[in-house]
Amino acid sequence: MDIFFSGSIRGGRDDVDLYGKLVDLLQQHGTVLSEHVGTEGIEADQKEAGLSDGDIHDQDVAWLQQAEIVVAEVTTPSLGVGYELGRAVAWEKPVLCLYRPDAEHELSAMVRGNGAVEVTEYRTPAEVESVLDEFVRRHR
Amino acid sequence: MDIFFSGSIRGGRDDVDLYGKLVDLLQQHGTVLSEHVGTEGIEADQKEAGLSDGDIHDQDVAWLQQAEIVVAEVTTPSLGVGYELGRAVAWEKPVLCLYRPDAEHELSAMVRGNGAVEVTEYRTPAEVESVLDEFVRRHR
Repeated sequence: MDIFFSGSIRGGRDDVDLYGKLVDLLQQHGTVLSEHVGTEGIEADQKEAGLSDGDIHDQDVAWLQQAEIVVAEVTTPSLGVGYELGRAVAWEKPVLCLYRPDAEHELSAMVRGNGAVEVTEYRTPAEVESVLDEFVRRHR
Repeated sequence: MDIFFSGSIRGGRDDVDLYGKLVDLLQQHGTVLSEHVGTEGIEADQKEAGLSDGDIHDQDVAWLQQAEIVVAEVTTPSLGVGYELGRAVAWEKPVLCLYRPDAEHELSAMVRGNGAVEVTEYRTPAEVESVLDEFVRRHR
């Protein structure tokens, strides 16, 4: 199963370790096309590889289109995550958003009030393990 | 001309005065369906009006679909702004993004590397007046 994981990059990398743990959990179910979102130093790696913003955009959108399901960590406000959610909903992909309610920012009404995405609140990756299992099984 | 203006709400309201000035400029060219994005106290107003997150989402997406052009202020990272950009691009709407390069966050590659949106960098609303004129004229 091809999975797209979405997390903040330029919006802020405070949660990169958490993204890595969520990617690990998702990799038990399939291929996480965007696994680099969960690794430190992604921006340096992209720069070293000579990727332009156009290259990054085109690759991400191609992976998003290829993916059977989309899982996003939405606690850190991010234009890129929001953009990917908008494209995923337009393509009618199954979308699961994970949000930590002790965050600085309330979750956007465009996500929380969105009938086309599922939202799960959690505190630790361990708490979402069964949610991911169930979401994957439902869309396999 | 129906115009959708997009700016951060729950992602942070530091730029609300600026959003108000951009809405004023856009109102010289048509109807800004989402003009409330540029007003203080929007969240209190929505609460007082008894709007649920679902109501807010549904109204915003309906306005976005109705709009002939979309203008977004993208300096403050925001899930909602990103989501609206994703839906607007999927609908092939003309999209103009305004970004202040002295910002804390670099602009997302999903916006800057996106061939389907135009990006203008600026410092003050006065600087974008002619950009808005030209963008509106091109899509009227």
